[in-house]
Amino acid sequence: MLNLQTHTEHFTNPLYLESGRILEPYDIAYETYGEISDEKDNVIIVTHALTGSHHAAGYYEGESKPGWWDGLIGPGKALDTDRYFIICTNVIGSCFGSSGPMSMMESHNAPYRYKFPVITVKDMVKAQRILFDRLGIHHVHAIVGGSMGGMQALQFAVHYPKFADKIIVMASTYATQPWAIAFNKVAQEAILEDPDFKKGYYDPEDIRKNGLTGMAVGRMAGHISFLSHHSMQRKFGRSYKRDDGLYELFGKFQVESYLEYNGYNFTKWFDPLSYLYITKAINIYDLGRGFDSLEEALSKIQAELYMISFSSDILFLPSEMERIVDVLKARNYKKCDYLEVESDYGHDAFLVEIDKFEDYVREALKPKRRSLNPGPSRWHEEAITTPIR
Amino acid sequence: MLNLQTHTEHFTNPLYLESGRILEPYDIAYETYGEISDEKDNVIIVTHALTGSHHAAGYYEGESKPGWWDGLIGPGKALDTDRYFIICTNVIGSCFGSSGPMSMMESHNAPYRYKFPVITVKDMVKAQRILFDRLGIHHVHAIVGGSMGGMQALQFAVHYPKFADKIIVMASTYATQPWAIAFNKVAQEAILEDPDFKKGYYDPEDIRKNGLTGMAVGRMAGHISFLSHHSMQRKFGRSYKRDDGLYELFGKFQVESYLEYNGYNFTKWFDPLSYLYITKAINIYDLGRGFDSLEEALSKIQAELYMISFSSDILFLPSEMERIVDVLKARNYKKCDYLEVESDYGHDAFLVEIDKFEDYVREALKPKRRSLNPGPSRWHEEAITTPIR
Repeated sequence: MLNLQTHTEHFTNPLYLESGRILEPYDIAYETYGEISDEKDNVIIVTHALTGSHHAAGYYEGESKPGWWDGLIGPGKALDTDRYFIICTNVIGSCFGSSGPMSMMESHNAPYRYKFPVITVKDMVKAQRILFDRLGIHHVHAIVGGSMGGMQALQFAVHYPKFADKIIVMASTYATQPWAIAFNKVAQEAILEDPDFKKGYYDPEDIRKNGLTGMAVGRMAGHISFLSHHSMQRKFGRSYKRDDGLYELFGKFQVESYLEYNGYNFTKWFDPLSYLYITKAINIYDLGRGFDSLEEALSKIQAELYMISFSSDILFLPSEMERIVDVLKARNYKKCDYLEVESDYGHDAFLVEIDKFEDYVREALKPKRRSLNPGPSRWHEEAITTPIR
Repeated sequence: MLNLQTHTEHFTNPLYLESGRILEPYDIAYETYGEISDEKDNVIIVTHALTGSHHAAGYYEGESKPGWWDGLIGPGKALDTDRYFIICTNVIGSCFGSSGPMSMMESHNAPYRYKFPVITVKDMVKAQRILFDRLGIHHVHAIVGGSMGGMQALQFAVHYPKFADKIIVMASTYATQPWAIAFNKVAQEAILEDPDFKKGYYDPEDIRKNGLTGMAVGRMAGHISFLSHHSMQRKFGRSYKRDDGLYELFGKFQVESYLEYNGYNFTKWFDPLSYLYITKAINIYDLGRGFDSLEEALSKIQAELYMISFSSDILFLPSEMERIVDVLKARNYKKCDYLEVESDYGHDAFLVEIDKFEDYVREALKPKRRSLNPGPSRWHEEAITTPIR
């Protein structure tokens, strides 16, 4: 049985953001699975993607759908809750309990809306680090995330080099490329120009009830980027949802119904301003920012770094992950391992093809031989000169 | 100097459509380049893509931009107007002079709008065939088209096997796959749900003046599908159009400006209902429809078939063109040739990388040794058993 707990922490000290602005006060919602050890040495952090939340596993009462990475997290699973204590936090800027643009701005007694500061992936990570400090967790076994979750894991690795022993990154990148920015642009534009968005002054209840076409359209574009040409071909082919569609202007191919359903359904559970803020954070994500180069940023990493890409991912290409591997190899960094998973599921593979990488994750999480005299890197050189895998 | 002429022909006999419906009367706008020979044996038909028009080459008075395939068509160019007489017609359903949804419906003294029948690529081709008959052109040297233009060329090849000696198809497919349908879906939904579209009862002048956000958003999605991950990376990188964009919610990456410009500009020159009708025609395009199989459809072809795909085309993959080649090879059809062009320009390559295929087109257009006793295929077996290239 999964020991699932949901909490929210309130912070009154300002959060100093990468932009120079501050956020204060702020909340962070998080969820935990399993039991923390007395030594607090069995912690694994899971980081979520664009529309994810801290609800990564298990079932809420009355819900029929489990958390978004339930296949990976649980008793006996790769992120084994019989052994590890897993924490997943909702990123700041999101809409599931952590502070975001629709949170109340105390000084105004109204939601922030556009007064919410632009946040970055680095800010998301900083906020989590502050939460973990309050929880007395100053070091973790691993950080695991896909997509924007992978960006967070990499930012942890670069900016808090001693915080985690292992970093596992899936379907992510070192910096968001124009191709991904373009998909976000379509979504942002569609939201901003929808009259029902009311230039950001919408009533969230209205949107939950009636949807928001612009966000639905934008999400449809998103769903294209999450799949691949081949996965769509296999999943939908040219099948019709309705047989009479051929000579009606609005006949529906199955792929059209899929996009419609996912697009419109999305607007019932996600906030449009959060979508704008988080896609912005993704667009400006660049691991090298604040350093002279990507190379310099990556030189900070001390953790074991495991990277998993998916062959058909068109949003964050395997070549983007390989770029990181190449840089680290050029520096003769030995604690880096890379797996390209053959998959037809596109970017979605990190959520749906868990069977293709769970063993790899399980293996990566195994403690290796520890230094008897823990130095700055926590590892004996001889223990790490053999490639990890 | 290019001898450019623009005409419109009016037809009063009904056009019987694939759906069983009829269109009557109707107009077809077309443009010609070069001089027709006395024997009318130097005709090449050029077919246009989704948002193209009959204006394929040369300059209109006062215009600074030439027709869409000006690099390929003209004196001394691959489609050499010193030698060939080129015709390009605006497809029915479009908005540049041929009958489309915003044409006047005589019985109603108002535009058709949704009363316009759903048309197919086969219907577009049939209408052109009727036009050419009126012009006394019953046989042509070649038909050349890319994207939806390639679909038309293939439909000509299958349904009018003796009409053309040579068919040259670029960046196209045998049947539109769900991936391409999905991009069209985003555009269609964005248009349909824009309040300024007024459920189809918009004033076209309003839209030309003020634009139509939904169509702009849809077109942005389209422009993603026309490019490729790599071409975007090379073209835009992560450069900012405005330097101050990083911590403003609406800072603009160059790729965002590109999409905005092309999206919004598009709404000034293309009609939204035409966009709906033509994307519908593309979605339901399937060369095998009306036959037992694609194989049966392709078995009708008698012309030389030259196919050009582009390595980075993500809208119509090289593998889709290869499917046609494979079927024809399996039938031991010798008059088929295939070239995959290495390109980073994605689907747009057929418009912008002309230097990479113009020589191939020039070569393909050369008359081969004719049969002295023209049989049904117009070719001696011995002349064609050697692969064309």
